[in-house]
Amino acid sequence: MSKINADRLLNDLKQLRTFGSTSPGVVRLALSPIDMESRRWLADRMSDAGLDAVIDGVGTVFGRSRKSGAALLIGSHTDTQPTGGWLDGAMGVIYGLEIARALAESKETSHLAVDVASWSDEEGTFAGFLGSRSFIGDPVDETIACARNREGQRLQDALEAAGLTGAPRVRLEKGRHVAYLEPHIEQGGRLEATGKSIGVVTTIVGIRELRVRFTGQRNHAGTTPMSIRRDAGAALVGFVARMNEAFQQLVDSDTVWTVGRIDLDPGSLSVVPGQADMYLQFRDANAARLRAMEEKLAELVRDFNVEGGVSALLMTLHEPEEPVTMDGALQEHLANSSEAVAPGRWVRMPSGASHDAQLIARHIPACMLFVPSIGGVSHDFIEDTAEEHIVLGCQVAATAAVAILQEMSARRS
Amino acid sequence: MSKINADRLLNDLKQLRTFGSTSPGVVRLALSPIDMESRRWLADRMSDAGLDAVIDGVGTVFGRSRKSGAALLIGSHTDTQPTGGWLDGAMGVIYGLEIARALAESKETSHLAVDVASWSDEEGTFAGFLGSRSFIGDPVDETIACARNREGQRLQDALEAAGLTGAPRVRLEKGRHVAYLEPHIEQGGRLEATGKSIGVVTTIVGIRELRVRFTGQRNHAGTTPMSIRRDAGAALVGFVARMNEAFQQLVDSDTVWTVGRIDLDPGSLSVVPGQADMYLQFRDANAARLRAMEEKLAELVRDFNVEGGVSALLMTLHEPEEPVTMDGALQEHLANSSEAVAPGRWVRMPSGASHDAQLIARHIPACMLFVPSIGGVSHDFIEDTAEEHIVLGCQVAATAAVAILQEMSARRS
Repeated sequence: MSKINADRLLNDLKQLRTFGSTSPGVVRLALSPIDMESRRWLADRMSDAGLDAVIDGVGTVFGRSRKSGAALLIGSHTDTQPTGGWLDGAMGVIYGLEIARALAESKETSHLAVDVASWSDEEGTFAGFLGSRSFIGDPVDETIACARNREGQRLQDALEAAGLTGAPRVRLEKGRHVAYLEPHIEQGGRLEATGKSIGVVTTIVGIRELRVRFTGQRNHAGTTPMSIRRDAGAALVGFVARMNEAFQQLVDSDTVWTVGRIDLDPGSLSVVPGQADMYLQFRDANAARLRAMEEKLAELVRDFNVEGGVSALLMTLHEPEEPVTMDGALQEHLANSSEAVAPGRWVRMPSGASHDAQLIARHIPACMLFVPSIGGVSHDFIEDTAEEHIVLGCQVAATAAVAILQEMSARRS
Repeated sequence: MSKINADRLLNDLKQLRTFGSTSPGVVRLALSPIDMESRRWLADRMSDAGLDAVIDGVGTVFGRSRKSGAALLIGSHTDTQPTGGWLDGAMGVIYGLEIARALAESKETSHLAVDVASWSDEEGTFAGFLGSRSFIGDPVDETIACARNREGQRLQDALEAAGLTGAPRVRLEKGRHVAYLEPHIEQGGRLEATGKSIGVVTTIVGIRELRVRFTGQRNHAGTTPMSIRRDAGAALVGFVARMNEAFQQLVDSDTVWTVGRIDLDPGSLSVVPGQADMYLQFRDANAARLRAMEEKLAELVRDFNVEGGVSALLMTLHEPEEPVTMDGALQEHLANSSEAVAPGRWVRMPSGASHDAQLIARHIPACMLFVPSIGGVSHDFIEDTAEEHIVLGCQVAATAAVAILQEMSARRS
């Protein structure tokens, strides 16, 4: 077991927190001036750790080990949401940095190669998962040319302002990485509620995002009798109630679905809404269940349209994201390390949130490890994790890292 | 019976339509440059009709008869909604103009006094009913200092830009007006649906506008299990369904209620809404029923809060507007004139929309007359009324105007 340095870990996390700090929150939007400052700081820390560090053409900070042989890649992201916390993403990157240092310091592990990455724009300021997408070879040129942030700035212009135009993009080197490990805060309340300290991720859930648009007849809210109204908003409300009931029959306790947005048009108190949009997202670890929910929704829309009056139209907002199962052998390593470091205080669980790991898992065996989020809160300034859990998680990850690399070296030799 | 000139009436309406025309619609927002142009044109038409015409300090165009004795005031408004039609308001004003001319042309009626008004900003570009409020002596100085349009322009600045700063405000002259008549398009589909051509208004309905705010807990839509969510949006949807059911027990076929706007916060697909606002308006001709609906809503909110999880808060958005009954004797005059001009083709009915008449009725006996709206449409570019109905309505109004003035003169002498 390779011992990590808890003070050094926490100190680096707190240093990183100063970039864009709103105390207690952090605003470090991808490729913003403060984000770039933090990336240069991170690259310096990687260099200090003996890694060959670069900031690549899309903003990913990549620290490459000089050690020969198969490498373990540890990473996450250091950009934040518009109202971000200090640990979402950042923790996993600093774990990687600390593990690279810890392994290098110990005679038994100093030959093991750990690469560390902070993937650019995981949070989608311009285009979600930009760094990991570019790394695995997804075409991103069109994204760079077309994507804009909320202020209308083009990604291309942001990259230029960041001084990254023409910088090489780090790409997956075939055969180099035996595994990808992404440690992360849970962003939910399950660990806290069950009194566990470590989550070993089984699956990253799949996601569907859909819109149902209801079209009726806009009318004067005073002069149009209820009996002849074709109120798109009232239709939406009735439909959601019906949908909630139907989904209850299909789901298990891990399934989640959310109506996160409703738009009534024109949105005036004196006007019967002529159009109403309902935005729905649902997530599940089971691909078949996601399909069943999608089919049920389509069926509800068909039934609704038979009734007449107001019409409903179902639209897919996003490519379906299928569930991604974490590598079984890597899960075992994380489970064994958890049991060694925190006996009885860990649990297997799905990830309800999306992560770079789901993209990288297409090319490298991937796994994830969670630590508890206080109150289950994330994407909020008050997001936090007990220091004890931060340190514990890093020790589990370091222990697993050694086991993974040793097994792989043994297998290759 | 004083005969109106149909061609002159339609010609003036079509002339007025050219100011701000979008063919077929009209955009003539109160006090905008094009609205002021149309007011100057209208004042000229009033002068041509022998009235003493002014544009007053809030933008109302007022044409005062030079005839002695009690006067009938006929009016409505010539400003429009942001997507307005050509007749909403404008028709009633041009009816007044035509009736003043028609009465002046006939020997038997040339002694009768008809004043004509186009009240400023009925549609609330800055502040609804500005002109009629100012006319009846409501304090409007604070409104002028504080009200702004959607672009943020202050009413005070708009009045200055319109050249109206310092212009006197036309005020109700005690004892001058025996009655106020406001002819208007129906803005609903009742006349059309029942094959009638004229509506004699019994009551202008009262209005309540309220907001129910639901407060739960904002959370990650992927990592927060359904069982522990406090989803404000889901709570809102359930509440609306419950409210609709409860209202069904209280209403009659003329009651209307509308959820015109729903805001989920933060309105993102990936976030469980922590706050949700539901905007509700209801209208009825019966003051007791309005109170009963208000009490039912408060009761539903109390019951909801007992359940816990998400909390609900009821807020009044607007001063309650109580129903306003049209003067009984004037209703009789309109009914008699309708039966004389369009036998069997008229009906008594409430007005579901608000009108300047509801304010003026506090000081002068008031009545309203409706003509059919094609398809029940108003506040829309395609708003229209058959020319036959426009002419018929004006003839009914003119006939009633003579009867009202003759009866009043007889009574006074």
